[in-house]
Order: sequence, then structure tokens, then C-alpha cells
Amino acid sequence: MRTAYQNELSALLAQVGDMCGLAGVSMERATRALLGPDLTLAEEVITDHEAIVEMGVATEERALVLLARQAPVAGDLRTVVSSMKNAADVDRMAALALHVATIARRRHPRCAVPDDVAPYFTEMGRIAVDLGNSARDVVVSRDPRKAAQIRHDDDAIDELHSHLFTVLKDQEWRHGVAAGVDVALLSRYYERFADHAVELARRVIYQATGSVA
Amino acid sequence: MRTAYQNELSALLAQVGDMCGLAGVSMERATRALLGPDLTLAEEVITDHEAIVEMGVATEERALVLLARQAPVAGDLRTVVSSMKNAADVDRMAALALHVATIARRRHPRCAVPDDVAPYFTEMGRIAVDLGNSARDVVVSRDPRKAAQIRHDDDAIDELHSHLFTVLKDQEWRHGVAAGVDVALLSRYYERFADHAVELARRVIYQATGSVA
Repeated sequence: MRTAYQNELSALLAQVGDMCGLAGVSMERATRALLGPDLTLAEEVITDHEAIVEMGVATEERALVLLARQAPVAGDLRTVVSSMKNAADVDRMAALALHVATIARRRHPRCAVPDDVAPYFTEMGRIAVDLGNSARDVVVSRDPRKAAQIRHDDDAIDELHSHLFTVLKDQEWRHGVAAGVDVALLSRYYERFADHAVELARRVIYQATGSVA
Repeated sequence: MRTAYQNELSALLAQVGDMCGLAGVSMERATRALLGPDLTLAEEVITDHEAIVEMGVATEERALVLLARQAPVAGDLRTVVSSMKNAADVDRMAALALHVATIARRRHPRCAVPDDVAPYFTEMGRIAVDLGNSARDVVVSRDPRKAAQIRHDDDAIDELHSHLFTVLKDQEWRHGVAAGVDVALLSRYYERFADHAVELARRVIYQATGSVA
């Protein structure tokens, strides 16, 4: 028989999982807004961000209620506290998607990303939605294979990020400093997005198995 | 008479406060390493970072023990959970100082920052140590005046950051794209450092007074 604690914990994990999925979708949409460039889509991402922030607040409230009502100890306590930290990571992932959408809007009708580096961002956007989905699966299932997928996706983003910086520092870069700065910051937003997913997966798997993901 | 809970909570707050002070010092030293450039100092900052990370882990452990032993509810529970979130913000502040030191080391013996923008970073480094000290004071005293000082310092860093970006995007920038990208990322690290201090102060004051700092 499931206890009230187990039901409340499942609901908490499901909510953090939903946030992960939304953060991934938000980054993917922000990427399309950036590359379009698509002002309407950028503004939608910016408006929709508030819903993820509210989910984060609700998640923390749910965790606090659970702590107060059930006073869990040992592993159960750690799971609830981890969920709050996971929600904070996802909150930050969503904020990074917001940053991408904000740059897309600020540069419109110009595209912030020169054509020759656009494919890097297309690929990072594609990976971001995967990261969101894998993070959701890790949170809900605690499946170490999904955590491995996140590390794999993070490596792919790190490689794109590193390659982009090589392009930026090349003498052949002919788009000027302003575009270079935009590309560098944007690339860093995707890198940080992936870092937060890795951190979350590491925390979930450590919590579930006692070993580092 | 003080309860065991109050003693444990004071120790927890003092530990988070100590972390704040160390993060500020770390950013100030990283700034000196950057502008020297001073390879030895950069390496010291990188080595010393581990101690702050360990304090973060110990702080979280202390909070978990407090939750498990005392099972606080209502305001007390929120204070403990806030302390864990504050520790996470300070951990990130220290990581940003580490990033500055890492760029200083990577560019050595060259200075990553061209002479004409160095004063911006001198000033941001000076403010960073103030931010660390004010954050420590806010955590320990919950004094709203100290939180106001943090917002003031954050505004000053935002202004320097924004001004630096104007300089970067000016046609007169003559240090090339690679230096521009370094300056943009470095400036963002200081901006984020200040953001985390603001977030921490906001959380402490809201927790103490129920109103937003």
C-alpha cells in the first residue's frame, strides 16, 4: 500500500519532471525564434516563461508542505531536498531559454547569429529539447541510462560550444565584434543549460543509487 | 534560554555567512590575478576554490541534520531551506570567481583584458568583495540596510557591465574579436556574481520580514 508520503513524493517528482520538459521546449522554441528570426515566437517564449517560474514556486511550496507534514528522515528527506535543488536547476535552464529569446527579440529584424554559424545553434536547440525530455525521464524514473544520455548530450553541446569559440577566434571571422559577442554569450547559454541538466541527473542518480551518474 | 534548534540554526547561518565572505575575497583575488596578470595568484584562487565547495557540502549536510533532528515547521522550516538555497547561490558566486581565475591562467603571460577597459574590472573586483561582506552581514544579521547596500552594488556592477558592452560594440574597439569575447564573458561573470548576492539578500529579507528586500 502506498503511503501519503509516497503519493506526495510522486506528485513532487512529476512536477519537477514537467518543469524539465517545459524548459527543453522553451529552449527549442527560443532557438527557432533566434534563427528565424521570429519576433512573435520570441515574445511567446518570453511570456510563457512566467508559467515555468510559477511552477518552480509551486514545486518548492509542495516540498515545504511535504517536509512539514511528513517530517521525513534519512533517504526520504534527502529525496525531497534534492527535488527542491532540481527545481532550482530547471528554473535556471528556463531562464537561459528566456535569455536566448530576449537576444532574438533585441536584434530583430536582424538575426543575431550569422548564417555560417547558424547550424551550430540549430543543433544545440535540437539537443536542448532532448536534454529537457531526458531530465524529465531521469527525475521520474531515476533510470541511470537516461542520465548517461544527458552526459552524452552535454558532451555534444560542449563540443559545439568549443568549436564555435575556435571559429570566433579565427582571423577569418568577418562579422565584427558585436556579432562575435552575441554568438559567444548565446553559446554559453546553451552550455550552461546542458550543465544544469547534468547536475540534476547527477543528483538524482546519486540519490537513487549512492553512486555518481 | 536558547534551544538546541536555535544554536544549530545560528551555526548554519554563520557557516553560510563565512562562505559569502570567502566568495567575495575569491572574486577580488581573481580580479587581481586577471589584471596583474598574476599566474601564481590565479592558481591559488583555483586551488582555494575547493575549500569553498567543501564548505557548501558541509553546510548542506548541517541543514539536513537540522531538518532530520528538529523537524522544524512553518517559519523555522523555511529558514533552514532558505539557508540551503543561499549556500547554493554562494557556491555559484565562488564558481564565477573560479572562472575569472581560469581565464587569467589561460591567457597568461598575456593579460586577458586590454589596458583601456582594465579600470572597469578593477572596480567590479572592488565591488565584489563588498558584495561578499554585505551578503555575509545580511545572512547573519538579516539587516535590511545591508540588503539595500547589495542592491546598490548590483546596480553599480550592472552599469559597468552595460557600459563595457557599449565599448565592445563601438566601431573604435581595436582589440579584435578574441579579446572582445573574453571581456564580454568576464563582464558577465561579475554581473552574475552580483545577481546571486541580490537573490540571496532578497531571500533572507523576505524570510525575516515577509516583504521583498
